[in-house]
Amino acid sequence: MNAESIRKLFEQVRRGKLSPDEAVERLRHLPFEDLGFAKLDHHRALRVGMPEVVFAEGKTPAQLAQIFSRLATHGGNILATRASKEQFAAVKKKVPKAQYREPARAILLQRDHKKYGKGKIAVVSAGTSDIPVAEEAVVTAELMGNEVERLYDVGVAGIHRLLANRGTLSRARVVIVCAGMEGALPSVVGGLIGVPVIAVPTSIGYGAAFKGVAALLGMMNSCASNVSVVNIDNGFGAGYVASLINRL
Amino acid sequence: MNAESIRKLFEQVRRGKLSPDEAVERLRHLPFEDLGFAKLDHHRALRVGMPEVVFAEGKTPAQLAQIFSRLATHGGNILATRASKEQFAAVKKKVPKAQYREPARAILLQRDHKKYGKGKIAVVSAGTSDIPVAEEAVVTAELMGNEVERLYDVGVAGIHRLLANRGTLSRARVVIVCAGMEGALPSVVGGLIGVPVIAVPTSIGYGAAFKGVAALLGMMNSCASNVSVVNIDNGFGAGYVASLINRL
Amino acid sequence: MNAESIRKLFEQVRRGKLSPDEAVERLRHLPFEDLGFAKLDHHRALRVGMPEVVFAEGKTPAQLAQIFSRLATHGGNILATRASKEQFAAVKKKVPKAQYREPARAILLQRDHKKYGKGKIAVVSAGTSDIPVAEEAVVTAELMGNEVERLYDVGVAGIHRLLANRGTLSRARVVIVCAGMEGALPSVVGGLIGVPVIAVPTSIGYGAAFKGVAALLGMMNSCASNVSVVNIDNGFGAGYVASLINRL
Amino acid sequence: MNAESIRKLFEQVRRGKLSPDEAVERLRHLPFEDLGFAKLDHHRALRVGMPEVVFAEGKTPAQLAQIFSRLATHGGNILATRASKEQFAAVKKKVPKAQYREPARAILLQRDHKKYGKGKIAVVSAGTSDIPVAEEAVVTAELMGNEVERLYDVGVAGIHRLLANRGTLSRARVVIVCAGMEGALPSVVGGLIGVPVIAVPTSIGYGAAFKGVAALLGMMNSCASNVSVVNIDNGFGAGYVASLINRL
Amino acid sequence: MNAESIRKLFEQVRRGKLSPDEAVERLRHLPFEDLGFAKLDHHRALRVGMPEVVFAEGKTPAQLAQIFSRLATHGGNILATRASKEQFAAVKKKVPKAQYREPARAILLQRDHKKYGKGKIAVVSAGTSDIPVAEEAVVTAELMGNEVERLYDVGVAGIHRLLANRGTLSRARVVIVCAGMEGALPSVVGGLIGVPVIAVPTSIGYGAAFKGVAALLGMMNSCASNVSVVNIDNGFGAGYVASLINRL
Amino acid sequence: MNAESIRKLFEQVRRGKLSPDEAVERLRHLPFEDLGFAKLDHHRALRVGMPEVVFAEGKTPAQLAQIFSRLATHGGNILATRASKEQFAAVKKKVPKAQYREPARAILLQRDHKKYGKGKIAVVSAGTSDIPVAEEAVVTAELMGNEVERLYDVGVAGIHRLLANRGTLSRARVVIVCAGMEGALPSVVGGLIGVPVIAVPTSIGYGAAFKGVAALLGMMNSCASNVSVVNIDNGFGAGYVASLINRL
Amino acid sequence: MNAESIRKLFEQVRRGKLSPDEAVERLRHLPFEDLGFAKLDHHRALRVGMPEVVFAEGKTPAQLAQIFSRLATHGGNILATRASKEQFAAVKKKVPKAQYREPARAILLQRDHKKYGKGKIAVVSAGTSDIPVAEEAVVTAELMGNEVERLYDVGVAGIHRLLANRGTLSRARVVIVCAGMEGALPSVVGGLIGVPVIAVPTSIGYGAAFKGVAALLGMMNSCASNVSVVNIDNGFGAGYVASLINRL
Amino acid sequence: MNAESIRKLFEQVRRGKLSPDEAVERLRHLPFEDLGFAKLDHHRALRVGMPEVVFAEGKTPAQLAQIFSRLATHGGNILATRASKEQFAAVKKKVPKAQYREPARAILLQRDHKKYGKGKIAVVSAGTSDIPVAEEAVVTAELMGNEVERLYDVGVAGIHRLLANRGTLSRARVVIVCAGMEGALPSVVGGLIGVPVIAVPTSIGYGAAFKGVAALLGMMNSCASNVSVVNIDNGFGAGYVASLINRL
Repeated sequence: MNAESIRKLFEQVRRGKLSPDEAVERLRHLPFEDLGFAKLDHHRALRVGMPEVVFAEGKTPAQLAQIFSRLATHGGNILATRASKEQFAAVKKKVPKAQYREPARAILLQRDHKKYGKGKIAVVSAGTSDIPVAEEAVVTAELMGNEVERLYDVGVAGIHRLLANRGTLSRARVVIVCAGMEGALPSVVGGLIGVPVIAVPTSIGYGAAFKGVAALLGMMNSCASNVSVVNIDNGFGAGYVASLINRL
Repeated sequence: MNAESIRKLFEQVRRGKLSPDEAVERLRHLPFEDLGFAKLDHHRALRVGMPEVVFAEGKTPAQLAQIFSRLATHGGNILATRASKEQFAAVKKKVPKAQYREPARAILLQRDHKKYGKGKIAVVSAGTSDIPVAEEAVVTAELMGNEVERLYDVGVAGIHRLLANRGTLSRARVVIVCAGMEGALPSVVGGLIGVPVIAVPTSIGYGAAFKGVAALLGMMNSCASNVSVVNIDNGFGAGYVASLINRL
Repeated sequence: MNAESIRKLFEQVRRGKLSPDEAVERLRHLPFEDLGFAKLDHHRALRVGMPEVVFAEGKTPAQLAQIFSRLATHGGNILATRASKEQFAAVKKKVPKAQYREPARAILLQRDHKKYGKGKIAVVSAGTSDIPVAEEAVVTAELMGNEVERLYDVGVAGIHRLLANRGTLSRARVVIVCAGMEGALPSVVGGLIGVPVIAVPTSIGYGAAFKGVAALLGMMNSCASNVSVVNIDNGFGAGYVASLINRL
Repeated sequence: MNAESIRKLFEQVRRGKLSPDEAVERLRHLPFEDLGFAKLDHHRALRVGMPEVVFAEGKTPAQLAQIFSRLATHGGNILATRASKEQFAAVKKKVPKAQYREPARAILLQRDHKKYGKGKIAVVSAGTSDIPVAEEAVVTAELMGNEVERLYDVGVAGIHRLLANRGTLSRARVVIVCAGMEGALPSVVGGLIGVPVIAVPTSIGYGAAFKGVAALLGMMNSCASNVSVVNIDNGFGAGYVASLINRL
Repeated sequence: MNAESIRKLFEQVRRGKLSPDEAVERLRHLPFEDLGFAKLDHHRALRVGMPEVVFAEGKTPAQLAQIFSRLATHGGNILATRASKEQFAAVKKKVPKAQYREPARAILLQRDHKKYGKGKIAVVSAGTSDIPVAEEAVVTAELMGNEVERLYDVGVAGIHRLLANRGTLSRARVVIVCAGMEGALPSVVGGLIGVPVIAVPTSIGYGAAFKGVAALLGMMNSCASNVSVVNIDNGFGAGYVASLINRL
Repeated sequence: MNAESIRKLFEQVRRGKLSPDEAVERLRHLPFEDLGFAKLDHHRALRVGMPEVVFAEGKTPAQLAQIFSRLATHGGNILATRASKEQFAAVKKKVPKAQYREPARAILLQRDHKKYGKGKIAVVSAGTSDIPVAEEAVVTAELMGNEVERLYDVGVAGIHRLLANRGTLSRARVVIVCAGMEGALPSVVGGLIGVPVIAVPTSIGYGAAFKGVAALLGMMNSCASNVSVVNIDNGFGAGYVASLINRL
Repeated sequence: MNAESIRKLFEQVRRGKLSPDEAVERLRHLPFEDLGFAKLDHHRALRVGMPEVVFAEGKTPAQLAQIFSRLATHGGNILATRASKEQFAAVKKKVPKAQYREPARAILLQRDHKKYGKGKIAVVSAGTSDIPVAEEAVVTAELMGNEVERLYDVGVAGIHRLLANRGTLSRARVVIVCAGMEGALPSVVGGLIGVPVIAVPTSIGYGAAFKGVAALLGMMNSCASNVSVVNIDNGFGAGYVASLINRL
Repeated sequence: MNAESIRKLFEQVRRGKLSPDEAVERLRHLPFEDLGFAKLDHHRALRVGMPEVVFAEGKTPAQLAQIFSRLATHGGNILATRASKEQFAAVKKKVPKAQYREPARAILLQRDHKKYGKGKIAVVSAGTSDIPVAEEAVVTAELMGNEVERLYDVGVAGIHRLLANRGTLSRARVVIVCAGMEGALPSVVGGLIGVPVIAVPTSIGYGAAFKGVAALLGMMNSCASNVSVVNIDNGFGAGYVASLINRL
């Protein structure tokens, strides 16, 4: 439709009814959105290898199933984060190939298995309670075509557990670190390696942990220079950013 | 330049080197910003009667004078907010017609004296300490072509002062209310009238006033439905919004 | 002094220079505090076209039904915000003509269909999760006699969606923008148009969104000068303010 | 036991084994707590006319009933605040004369009906949602022997409602004002009268009301000098302080 | 309706049944909104023995001197709080009888020496750094006609200092307690006595004291029921409230 | 495995294939974690008399039972904090000797009954609602081999209750103080004794108590110099720190 | 005076005018504070080896010199914290033996050189900017008779620096850890050792460090169980607590 | 020294005094830190192309000059951030080749000019006041061997400025976005491109901007999935992370 109005302009030029200058002048006055469609292509290009993503929390099983199956009519991978088993059951009925990753609370449909990542992504968690967030990062990174290595329960109060696994860290091209409570792990990890660290504060903790605020502040103030931070419990975001980095 | 690349496209169509369809296809792949310029006109149109505005705080007198005089080469009114006398002295040298409104801490150059506002704007302050913020709103509204009526020092702890001046309120088409401390005045004013109230929390107060936060929260929670809020001490913003409303 | 002016009035009546009715009439125009009762009339006048409003949340279905039906004995429109289906069922029994707008969670009884608004109000939402708040604004504005145009799911991370719909924005006399998370949309919208923007932070988001605080702060600090803000999730307030503006 | 060790000292003095001076010297070195019991009497004296108070929230009906009935074995009034109907049912079985005041969510046993207060206490609420807190203040004040006058739903957005009831305010020796949202009412009330105002922020509101924080800050920053503040929703505390004042 | 009652009054005047003076007198006793002006009288009455108060902070010496001397043309006491020596020097020139109370940072002019308070007010401070706030309370209370007893440096970490001075507390009709840091003193004092306690958080402390916020929160949550709170560092407010209570 | 790679190095030296210097050089380049195991011994040594601890909250009964029984295969004491009766039932089935301490919400298995503490630990609570947190500290300290004395319900608003029990305080080598609301008790206790005080803010309170934040701030700002603080409701941490101190 | 009233009681007993039982009864009714003085001795006993401490910040050089010299008339050590060179110059004139420790910003007068501590105290800092706070802890601990070992600039982003100095940590009986920014160091140190760790958040950092709040929250949420926390920048408090522990 | 003790172990093995197994056993009991040095090499390796960095703020010119010149004795680049002209003057005297980049407030010494980055880094600023932070990122990235493109003053309220420069964005391999006030720009930029975005909140703004907190929260909640965040005003950190990414 928008393309149509522009085609008409060209047609008028072709037929000599408008000079090129006049056409440019008219184009100048066409509403901006007439060319909005141009972005779609570009945008789609951007998305090669990117999953379609749905935030499942707060949606009914029926709503989620409907959205998920609609997305499934296009190609590519689909990821529903923060999804419950009930939601999965509803999705499964409509999209039988959908899978549920329980620790990550994620529903996924993987059709593109290409490896887009050039190296490994390490996903590190401070405690066992941080694992759901870490697994969300893992699922995201895997669905975006990355090889992932896990390193869990290596919090700073038992620093030897981390040091004993430096191999995993040193093999990674990007590292994701999930930690609640004081959120100190990214600083220590960041100091041990020379690659980018994506820190994910988790809402694990109680009292003055303030549902992840203490960890978030700790990470924002990391004394390691290679750390950047995403939102509390945002395992998906960390996996997404790490995947983009690993494609470079 | 951008126009040029499009003109070439039209030229090619005109010369039959491209069919209209091919041209549309090419246009589709031209970088988006090639048509960005179209917005300038539109934008400029928007700005009829709007002053050019500079936030003076943090700029040296020399910097401000330079910016102000550059803006003065175009027509229209100019407003520098949060300006000191020193800054004004520097501006005055370069732009002799510039004026200083001390209580508002504003430098202004008024060349467009047209009345754009259809009615009156009332500017109300709770205390005398809120007057600088209120005056910033006054200057802004006046420079944007409005008639303004002031109603100062009518805070809620002496409600009769406000009630005794309801005439001013009822004559206004829009009302701006500036208050610090508990920020209660907009609710009372809002309850007395049927026109939009723009509330401006000020940083006046001490202790648990938290530099305007108490007033801001009070205003956000106003039990009067006709109140909306701008940033702490943002007299300019209130004057601007009120002016837009008064033009309708 | 005031007592004096009233005594003079009595004196004139005593001397037959004024009839009692004339005296009451004059009294009506004396400064406010002499005639507080006048507020009732004035107030009522103010309310022409304003709905009676009930905040349903926290009320039992029975309580709400009772309040709603009592209000229905007077003329005019009635609006119950944040109402559940259960509450509506109870209201419906007592006031059969009441309607439920599910996405807005609003019960309404519309008897006055006059168009009070002079132009259109555009209601914009950043994401689909912000729609309930946006719909509350829509219902409020419609009940107050305005024509409303919706523009949903045009968040800033996909700016082309917004730009492709600039027509809707440019046709509006006032614009309401509802956004959660970072609350950036009002700034972008504000920059595109020259009319007042009422920003509504929503509690959508998680982690550092702090139930709407991040969005609220973002909107308070908007770099667009035509933005003012109402409380988190306060779609009603935005609709109300926008309606008042659109009547001017 | 403690008394015993002192009695021995006196015994030794009586028998001439210690001179008074030596006894004083020894007393000086007795652990402090040996005389702690002396305070009990004093304390009890303080409590003439004060109810025994239990905070019921978080206790099982059985626990509350047990505590309440144990307190009932002494004379004087008893008050359980934040009590549910279920808790009352359990209390009622053990203490048949106990009464339940539903709007105040209070269980009370009144045996001392003496009027300790010298004047009236006015209890004011901004909205109808603030009434439970206001009623807790009313019950407390009445149980402590005061005559109370209620003035409800006189929030600042409809200031005429308050002004039309100034009589109630001016008859009071102390005034309690309960308000949520922006918490502006105490400032207005404070400005109208010359007696102490006890302000109670309530958790009524949503969004930036932050469960009473906005109201609390507003009240702390009241521009009326005769206002002091108690904790959010602390109707009991307000009633208690007002009762103490009214006894003076 | 209201108009009606006034019309009747006029009617009676017209028929000679009431003289104009009698009518004004009756009008005076009509419900408020008919007679807002009456507030002035009442208000003035309220102010018997109340000082005129100026908040000196942020005013130039010249400004303060001008305000102070203007107030001095009326009778009654005058108090300027948060005043510097420089400000006092300027005031002194214009109002030679003005005095400076250095520890309280207060300028005062006392002309009414009547004792309005019926008992003593005790002013207690936790540390020596809280004394300026305490002294502001003292000056205020004295200027409002009260006898004041000081009890300083009796913080809770040396509880014996407080206990050794219980006499002072028990002689008071109202007690003001000023404390910074953890703000615990009002709870302890409140537990020792049976009269109202006005708590004043001070900005004394560092780090997590947050300029008085820790003390403010502590006092709001006092486990003693006879405590109410004023703003951080608001010695004036505490003195004012205590004076009102002591007049009852 | 790691030990293996080092053993090979030694083997090569023994067989004369590497000189000692060359071996040191190679060791220098071995990945760090090869010697990580060395820390295990050290760590275990640290743990003599320390219980294995599980945070039960958020775990299913089955999960907790599995973890608890696995830990039980080693010697030493085991402590599960924040455990429900349901969780205990599951644990009990697998580990019949496990016990439940209801007020502390703790499951424990005590096999090491040695007294490691040199003196007594006093555990003090301000109110009865703080007892669960206090009991968690008690259980922890007892399981770590300490004699504990309880002193409950001695909040500062009834200071005589505390003073009457100074004996308990003066007998302790370390004191734990649990308090919610204003959190003032540690300051008073700290002032009465000369040994370390571990303060535990509890989430008891409402309104401006902010779930323990007010108490936490109060304790951080304690005017008693012998007070240090652990997280809100962290009875376990306080018991642990006190036990370490009591072993010195 | 107080002693006098008790002496009279004993005198009456001695003279047979009162039986011991009657005397006890009378004593019971004497005001509590009559025996307050008894605490002085006890308190003084507590203070053996404790320095007298003055918080110098905010005092004029003259004031500090006066306080310091007055304290110097008694025996024992004196410590003035947060003191400037100017303040020291004034003190030095009056108390020539006073010394200034520049990095600690402390003035001290050491006359008691006894070693009260049984082992070593390690004082650890994360960065060089934390050293002033660490040095305040050092000075305090030394003045209270402890041997101190420093371990500075061993922040977690270079974990090898800390690990390479574990000897220092393992030799200490108590460890103080000072850290700003994310405040992660106490957790790591706490995990490496089995003795109490006193954590001191410092105000070092910028942006989201919020003047020590991020570090404070991090430390409150430490995943190491042997960590307790003092106020931001409170090196003195940490040194004091550690000294008390080291005496046990 | 540490190497020495290990060498002795090897020596003993070589001389047959210890079997390899016995040596491993002994090694197991050597203190951990004996091998700490091994990390230095590794660490240094990490640092190829990384500048040595000094945070200049709060250091005297003399201190900074000393640190800077000491670092200059090693090879590699040196960067001092947040440095004043005065500090630079002092550095310049000792290290004549040092340069000052005024807008970035950075002193630098560049000796390694190798291009480590594989693509371009775009540095974007919302306003002109954000430029110092942006320039700090630019200097850091350049010193770490990257080609940088600037895109300044393209805030979201004038979205066409950003869109007109999409070329710059699309050419970048990593994008840094600096914004104060509402911090909305990273979301818009993130939506336009498919590479990682590092967001830097700046402290630009006033009132409810809370020195960068509003921007920080906005960025943490970005609805664009490719955004991660560093500390407020941390241009250095953003430049550092971007450089690491650009090397991959």
